[in-house]
Amino acid sequence: MTILNRLRDGSLKLYELEKELSPIDAIRVRREFIAQETGAVLENIGIFSIDIERVVRRNCENMIGTVQVPVGVAGPIRINGGHAQGSYWLPLATTEGALIASVNRGCSAITKAGGADVRLLHDGMTRAPVFATDSVIHASSVCNWVTEHHDELKTAAESTTSHGKLTGIATFVAGTSVYVRFEFDTKDAMGMNMVTIASAKVADLIAAGTGARLIALSGNMCTDKKPAAINGIMGRGRSVVAGVALTHELISRVFKTDATSIHEVNYRKNLVGSARAGSMGFNAHAANVVAAMFIACGQDAAHAIDGSTCITTVDLTETGIYVAVTLPSLPVGTVGGGTGIETQQECLKLLGVAGSGTPPGTNARKLGEIIGAAVLAGELSLLGALAAQHLARAHQQLGRG
Amino acid sequence: MTILNRLRDGSLKLYELEKELSPIDAIRVRREFIAQETGAVLENIGIFSIDIERVVRRNCENMIGTVQVPVGVAGPIRINGGHAQGSYWLPLATTEGALIASVNRGCSAITKAGGADVRLLHDGMTRAPVFATDSVIHASSVCNWVTEHHDELKTAAESTTSHGKLTGIATFVAGTSVYVRFEFDTKDAMGMNMVTIASAKVADLIAAGTGARLIALSGNMCTDKKPAAINGIMGRGRSVVAGVALTHELISRVFKTDATSIHEVNYRKNLVGSARAGSMGFNAHAANVVAAMFIACGQDAAHAIDGSTCITTVDLTETGIYVAVTLPSLPVGTVGGGTGIETQQECLKLLGVAGSGTPPGTNARKLGEIIGAAVLAGELSLLGALAAQHLARAHQQLGRG
Amino acid sequence: MTILNRLRDGSLKLYELEKELSPIDAIRVRREFIAQETGAVLENIGIFSIDIERVVRRNCENMIGTVQVPVGVAGPIRINGGHAQGSYWLPLATTEGALIASVNRGCSAITKAGGADVRLLHDGMTRAPVFATDSVIHASSVCNWVTEHHDELKTAAESTTSHGKLTGIATFVAGTSVYVRFEFDTKDAMGMNMVTIASAKVADLIAAGTGARLIALSGNMCTDKKPAAINGIMGRGRSVVAGVALTHELISRVFKTDATSIHEVNYRKNLVGSARAGSMGFNAHAANVVAAMFIACGQDAAHAIDGSTCITTVDLTETGIYVAVTLPSLPVGTVGGGTGIETQQECLKLLGVAGSGTPPGTNARKLGEIIGAAVLAGELSLLGALAAQHLARAHQQLGRG
Amino acid sequence: MTILNRLRDGSLKLYELEKELSPIDAIRVRREFIAQETGAVLENIGIFSIDIERVVRRNCENMIGTVQVPVGVAGPIRINGGHAQGSYWLPLATTEGALIASVNRGCSAITKAGGADVRLLHDGMTRAPVFATDSVIHASSVCNWVTEHHDELKTAAESTTSHGKLTGIATFVAGTSVYVRFEFDTKDAMGMNMVTIASAKVADLIAAGTGARLIALSGNMCTDKKPAAINGIMGRGRSVVAGVALTHELISRVFKTDATSIHEVNYRKNLVGSARAGSMGFNAHAANVVAAMFIACGQDAAHAIDGSTCITTVDLTETGIYVAVTLPSLPVGTVGGGTGIETQQECLKLLGVAGSGTPPGTNARKLGEIIGAAVLAGELSLLGALAAQHLARAHQQLGRG
Repeated sequence: MTILNRLRDGSLKLYELEKELSPIDAIRVRREFIAQETGAVLENIGIFSIDIERVVRRNCENMIGTVQVPVGVAGPIRINGGHAQGSYWLPLATTEGALIASVNRGCSAITKAGGADVRLLHDGMTRAPVFATDSVIHASSVCNWVTEHHDELKTAAESTTSHGKLTGIATFVAGTSVYVRFEFDTKDAMGMNMVTIASAKVADLIAAGTGARLIALSGNMCTDKKPAAINGIMGRGRSVVAGVALTHELISRVFKTDATSIHEVNYRKNLVGSARAGSMGFNAHAANVVAAMFIACGQDAAHAIDGSTCITTVDLTETGIYVAVTLPSLPVGTVGGGTGIETQQECLKLLGVAGSGTPPGTNARKLGEIIGAAVLAGELSLLGALAAQHLARAHQQLGRG
Repeated sequence: MTILNRLRDGSLKLYELEKELSPIDAIRVRREFIAQETGAVLENIGIFSIDIERVVRRNCENMIGTVQVPVGVAGPIRINGGHAQGSYWLPLATTEGALIASVNRGCSAITKAGGADVRLLHDGMTRAPVFATDSVIHASSVCNWVTEHHDELKTAAESTTSHGKLTGIATFVAGTSVYVRFEFDTKDAMGMNMVTIASAKVADLIAAGTGARLIALSGNMCTDKKPAAINGIMGRGRSVVAGVALTHELISRVFKTDATSIHEVNYRKNLVGSARAGSMGFNAHAANVVAAMFIACGQDAAHAIDGSTCITTVDLTETGIYVAVTLPSLPVGTVGGGTGIETQQECLKLLGVAGSGTPPGTNARKLGEIIGAAVLAGELSLLGALAAQHLARAHQQLGRG
Repeated sequence: MTILNRLRDGSLKLYELEKELSPIDAIRVRREFIAQETGAVLENIGIFSIDIERVVRRNCENMIGTVQVPVGVAGPIRINGGHAQGSYWLPLATTEGALIASVNRGCSAITKAGGADVRLLHDGMTRAPVFATDSVIHASSVCNWVTEHHDELKTAAESTTSHGKLTGIATFVAGTSVYVRFEFDTKDAMGMNMVTIASAKVADLIAAGTGARLIALSGNMCTDKKPAAINGIMGRGRSVVAGVALTHELISRVFKTDATSIHEVNYRKNLVGSARAGSMGFNAHAANVVAAMFIACGQDAAHAIDGSTCITTVDLTETGIYVAVTLPSLPVGTVGGGTGIETQQECLKLLGVAGSGTPPGTNARKLGEIIGAAVLAGELSLLGALAAQHLARAHQQLGRG
Repeated sequence: MTILNRLRDGSLKLYELEKELSPIDAIRVRREFIAQETGAVLENIGIFSIDIERVVRRNCENMIGTVQVPVGVAGPIRINGGHAQGSYWLPLATTEGALIASVNRGCSAITKAGGADVRLLHDGMTRAPVFATDSVIHASSVCNWVTEHHDELKTAAESTTSHGKLTGIATFVAGTSVYVRFEFDTKDAMGMNMVTIASAKVADLIAAGTGARLIALSGNMCTDKKPAAINGIMGRGRSVVAGVALTHELISRVFKTDATSIHEVNYRKNLVGSARAGSMGFNAHAANVVAAMFIACGQDAAHAIDGSTCITTVDLTETGIYVAVTLPSLPVGTVGGGTGIETQQECLKLLGVAGSGTPPGTNARKLGEIIGAAVLAGELSLLGALAAQHLARAHQQLGRG
């Protein structure tokens, strides 16, 4: 019986193909099977150049090929960061027309203004297991136990990793549930895996020491891939802030508008509009830039959810405006995950941040700062465009009157 | 002077390459330039099979190539939807190891249980321009004017589009800012462009009729690509709910755990943990599935931010559990955006939803329901896995005791 | 056996005293009993002048007396509302020193500026029962049933009340839970009781018609006495907006500061600070004014939670600033609840809004607008004070430099 | 010219009356003036027994009298707290009929179950001034400066108070704004005044040391009197958790319902309903109890906004249910504010927590725990009542079938 027939009658599972075939053949056969089952012609999905061996082991089960996501560049953008310093070309993987052109204009304005100020404010990846206790008294005593055994837990956590360092433990109670939020310095890795493994070890110690039952290694107070106030307040991943001062002259020349108009767009849209909408995002389109940079650079695309939490501010100053973006929870890394896939790694290389930095952690921090500057470019450009239209309309209205 | 030299000395802009070269050459030259500038070797980014002509016009400026994102399949999953009915193989583009295997197990459980119940609750893409007024009295009168001119505004909006229908207008005031949220039936398109164009037309009418100043076509009460309560409450894009009943026997057989344990994980993690974290996401990892399906299917990846807003519920029933996911704001389409790129379109074809449906709108609604079912599979699988470990530990602890 | 002994040995319950004694004696005996049990001397609690007969039936069980909350006045404040027009003295019941003085200064500034612009944007009290269904399909069909039976439900709802009118029904699904949010015009009553009785009637019809199980008459999507985005977005109670234009000259004279400083305080504190804190309150201290007015005027003090949800905005204008407050969910009434207690009713009379208005509803709407203006006075005053200190410090720093 | 005439013609300001008259006369004359101005008869407001001398200095400007708020008692409730231990009668000041009866039933159930478990999880009052900086680099360096000068700032802060201790400093950046959140152990005081004075001193040091401009002593990251995630996550005031285990037998006897029904009400209403509403309050009616206890006990009523933030949980256990309430930010004190007014102080005495505790802080912590238990009683009772109706209806429906 052919393999396709065995797949069809269920005697061979789709995910078992790699057991009998080389990865490349397994992918091909699986694709053929799916094509037959669905009647879809799957030509292009099968065309790829990346090294499949590692991908099927690490990144993707039941693989049938790849999707090709267009990558363009914006830049150069001058960055005056604590870690990233110099001029950068930003790789953006996107299908949204006009996005790269917009970021490009923001890069140009920033560079003309002397570069983006960027700082990493905090750095720490988190995992927060949840435990069940018998009573609020038990819950309270678990918190105390954790505090008292801090050093022991730190030692245990760090025994599971050659790179990671435990940098904080915080406890939270909700009724009989106890959430213990561990924070790690994960160096150049985004670090979720490292942190999860370490948390598992520590969680077992806590359960054994307190009689609390471990319910889940993630109790949603991490918080991973969901918008959450805790990430904004305590930070998660790389916390980055980026800003730039624009003079009246530059605003007029590059954006064809003025300081007051940009300020008003930010005020009524990003601040008041977001407040009125019950939004956790006080920005124009940070998600566009974060998602595009994440996909290009082999980051976990689902991390764009927490990564794009952003407050955009526009201060009126004596010489013009100071525009800034605050990104408290960018989960990024330059090793592990999708960063090793060839096309994605080329994007990291293009930024000079592929692989481990010297010392460890510097590449990921650079990447965090670069993405912060990229978001600034995107915000600036869209605010400028909206303000210019708004100004144009105002003139038009005056002309009419 | 060579083109590369002209790029280098700034006499030719990077985005002007398409004016002098064919798209394919422009991409190649641009990539070479970036490679030289950054010292990075960009081999794989330049290998692609998609039709570039359209992509450079519609999807991506300053293109240098593509990233290849691995695509695997999970399934088949049986879906009993209002629009999607039958068995589906789900294409997921991801670099997160174990994700597809996890979704696959969820699909298997759902299919064994007879399929996922899915319903589209609401369908409407929105845009909310913001206007500045002189006073709260003026603001209030703008709202009244909009209400009184509803039919006129609807006619104007629909004059800009051959497909879209205006289905609702809501006004919001915050001080002197007025937000007018337009909702459209955009048929098979995700529809942001259509809606923006229509909103621009209507916004001009409102400005002219009321003397309010249009500040921005998006006032962040749309709300696009930011987590926002308004999307949950009023719906945005395709609002989908999916659920499945699992018997005690099935839970035990597929997940090696029991109803109570799955219920407890959901309760302490997804509900209480999220509440305690100040999170807008009451789910385990909806974002993983939404992002992977969006990238595979040519959706706007930044829309995973709003698209992944999800409440996961687990009801204890007499026969086992009923697990459900509620996704109030999935912005998806099967025409436009990245849906026409060959690899992405093949993923849509694999689902039987590429292009316009008959009647228009049915393909996008199907896609919304399929993604709803896929999220259900992902949630179910992760909850089951967490519960099984939790149960295993409980047994172990008892064994020790 | 004496009554106190019977209370002591449990043969008489504390709440049964009114069965054997007149209200005034029951209160006295109960207070004596509590004094003996706790060893506390309860002299002043027993001194009151209000009519106890009604209070023990309607407002307070197990009564032992009253607390005396100091009441002061701020004003007069000129109000140019849709309902409230003229000059008002605001009664504020508070123990927070400096609050009334602060509001008073705000009233003075507003009056000097020609009065507060105020408008009622929406008016409707809500109740949202929650139903359990068997599946998401059942849930979806319950929503459809409700939509189809709108007129029948409206008739049933209105049969339970002589005043209330059903003005809206909205359905929400979360998994198998269905929330049906009823909105009523409750005229001069705050209306929770009226609305709850009407909702009970309609909820039974829905349960009978659809087979859904009614779980609770309030499913927390009302949302009553909790901060909730839904109230901001859909409105609840009286939705009010109030604003005032202040000239540079007035700002300087009354507040000893300037437009830019007030604007900056609002920007960095009320907008950006609140966003950064994950707050639902974008204001300085609206709660102070709302709570003080509510307690003075016999409103339900717990309603200050939803009532104080407020966005404060400061626009820079050519002539100075325009300051506004937006209060989307003020649950207030002038009949029922504590409004009939003599001291509280005197406060309502002082505002000219005691009892039913002509036509019904106008008194409560006036009260809503007055509270809106009072909040504006409080915000303005605190912003002005903060800005003045800030300006003073700035001058001091310059002086030093 | 009479005083009334001078008030009328503006030559004497209403707030100047105390300069010419004794407090008691000033209040009377002011009330007469207001009565004449408004045409309202203000008889009862003028009847009070509290000591006016202190009130007019500390609690209330422009006083015209008091409102009498009915006070009833619920209890006794047995409390097994870390600080409060024993049986308590709860004083509740309210005008909402049925509230005290409901809390009373909850107290009875709790006491029958052996008492409420209560623990104080955290204790610290906060103030967070906001500073403006020139750039994000400046902002970042201000944070570093604060960290480096921790001891110096602590010394300065504590020099302003004889009781308070600085227990924490946290810095937050949003663009160019820096928020420095100071936390203090304020012993038996609620502590806002103490903390504000200390923060002012420290804020001046920070401004002088860094060149940052102090914009406002409260930057809304405190967060005071607004619902805010930061208070839940970091705690503010007294963080309290209270719980109780109820057996099946007790549930049946006291509440005429069963464990499953109570659990279902909490699940669909307090957890899922609140999530769906975008609410920050995951409880049934905590605000009712917090507001009523606050008003009775001389707490700042506007603090009910932050104080009532509460998550109510119901765990299914082998023997019945465990119900708990988590209140992360109860701002309460037993000295200062309105606690010294006679009627309010009698309520504190009734609880045995008036004035300073031995050692300092214990009275306020007791009060925090007592309010936690009171909220538990209120939640339990309402959940029980809803569940009983729900069960009754279920039986009825079965009967019909």
